[in-house]
Amino acid sequence: MKKALAIDVGGTKIYNAIINKNGEIISEIEKHSTPKTIKEIITTFKSIIKKHENEIDIVAFSTCGAVNNENTGIVGSTGNIAKEYPQTDFKALSNKPVFVENDANCAAWAEYKIGASKNTRVSVMVTLGTGVGGGIIINDNLLKGQNGAAGEMHFKMYSDKRRKCTCDSWDCFEIYASGTGLKLTAEELLNDKNVTTYDVIDGVKNNNKQMLEIFNRWQNDITNGLIGLANIFDPDCIVLSGSLAEFVNTAEIEHNVNNEIVTTPVKIHKAKAGNYAGMIGAALLALSKGDC
Amino acid sequence: MKKALAIDVGGTKIYNAIINKNGEIISEIEKHSTPKTIKEIITTFKSIIKKHENEIDIVAFSTCGAVNNENTGIVGSTGNIAKEYPQTDFKALSNKPVFVENDANCAAWAEYKIGASKNTRVSVMVTLGTGVGGGIIINDNLLKGQNGAAGEMHFKMYSDKRRKCTCDSWDCFEIYASGTGLKLTAEELLNDKNVTTYDVIDGVKNNNKQMLEIFNRWQNDITNGLIGLANIFDPDCIVLSGSLAEFVNTAEIEHNVNNEIVTTPVKIHKAKAGNYAGMIGAALLALSKGDC
Repeated sequence: MKKALAIDVGGTKIYNAIINKNGEIISEIEKHSTPKTIKEIITTFKSIIKKHENEIDIVAFSTCGAVNNENTGIVGSTGNIAKEYPQTDFKALSNKPVFVENDANCAAWAEYKIGASKNTRVSVMVTLGTGVGGGIIINDNLLKGQNGAAGEMHFKMYSDKRRKCTCDSWDCFEIYASGTGLKLTAEELLNDKNVTTYDVIDGVKNNNKQMLEIFNRWQNDITNGLIGLANIFDPDCIVLSGSLAEFVNTAEIEHNVNNEIVTTPVKIHKAKAGNYAGMIGAALLALSKGDC
Repeated sequence: MKKALAIDVGGTKIYNAIINKNGEIISEIEKHSTPKTIKEIITTFKSIIKKHENEIDIVAFSTCGAVNNENTGIVGSTGNIAKEYPQTDFKALSNKPVFVENDANCAAWAEYKIGASKNTRVSVMVTLGTGVGGGIIINDNLLKGQNGAAGEMHFKMYSDKRRKCTCDSWDCFEIYASGTGLKLTAEELLNDKNVTTYDVIDGVKNNNKQMLEIFNRWQNDITNGLIGLANIFDPDCIVLSGSLAEFVNTAEIEHNVNNEIVTTPVKIHKAKAGNYAGMIGAALLALSKGDC
């Protein structure tokens, strides 16, 4: 059975594993800190690839940053990783074929193939972490856009400039629905700059009334964003993934979303493909759509 | 050359014409008032079809309401037309094949084939009329969603319940960017229930400062909505159509949208396929994707 060497590249960690066509991880999972310089990042890639190249059919990168429609490289800039990283020539890293896709897109694909959005026609994945990621699948294809940058969850929740977003624009879904958003909502309601998302989650677990109010406001912001996405895409389901997804009440969100949309009823699911969904999705994409 | 009998069905008027595979209207354009009862609507359809059935290869409906993925009938309810209209058995109306698509989707398709979004990979059309319509084309296919209802421009502009939308939810793009939205913005700023969209447009033409402020606020709402759509779809272009599109400043909108998005630069165009874009798109879709 064909196998891919999956490499997940984030701002702080790089993971790799060998994954087969069924989406099964069939090796140890190796973990590295993401080096600061582009030279060291490339050296890390080369050493991972050299070690495993003979065992696999294709190298599959799941990476931060938008990836072009040819799945060969990165479009634009990418945030907290060496600034030259987007210029990486991925193809040159291996004698085997190399396939590159954005990490949120990869994770959405894993959910679609082996997880929460299996057998759907249209699905939207929203990753609730420090930021918010998005991956949209329509009729067996990732929504990529003209240049591969689609799926950015930067649509406005307000039009009167309340919160500056990480993207430098104002009031994007990301700056409300993310962990950063939850912290900002807590800061605003408690008038306390030092409150953390952990304080809120902990307070919710202990039934603290104020923390519950903050949490519910955050969940309501998520709900309001998903209403828009449901009306735009009429999806079978919306999958919530990322470190904060475990805390939300999907039944409540599903009820409230379906109560407001003009399209047809949508399911809201939590992600099921696990912590390595990015690597699994990259491998499955590479093995089905890549040149191997 | 193959030809379709295109029938455009709106709440107030029904139009029909014969259109060839090039999107050329090759007959008189006939116009009827939309009857009040479903029985009279069906009679109107039958008389149009009987008159032209022998000259054409397929009947192509461009209709109000969301249309299913099989292009045979309407999903859900449709607003200001006989309430039984969604149950219409379109196939039974003719001995020739019958193809049905939503009117905004048809108009978007006409722009894509012969108009402002020709030769694009991803395009979004937004119709600025009494309401707001939407049609999205991705890799040569209309975005239809799980049941055909996709493309609804009901995403929130505010999350704190300011304006009730026609869909019964709050603060949708439609209730800000539509003609109704322009009137409401004028009402709010002038504290006058009797002001009309015409008053605003007229005032703008005469360089009235207050009307210019209202108009700019409305155009800014449109811009804010398009920023979200551009980030979600990374489209080559966004086409603005409908009766109010002629008044907006697309160069200014394009500049402001591109100034705020995290995806790649998008063009903002006015529609070019004309007043009968719905019929033209229905005919072109039916002749290429319909069963004829």
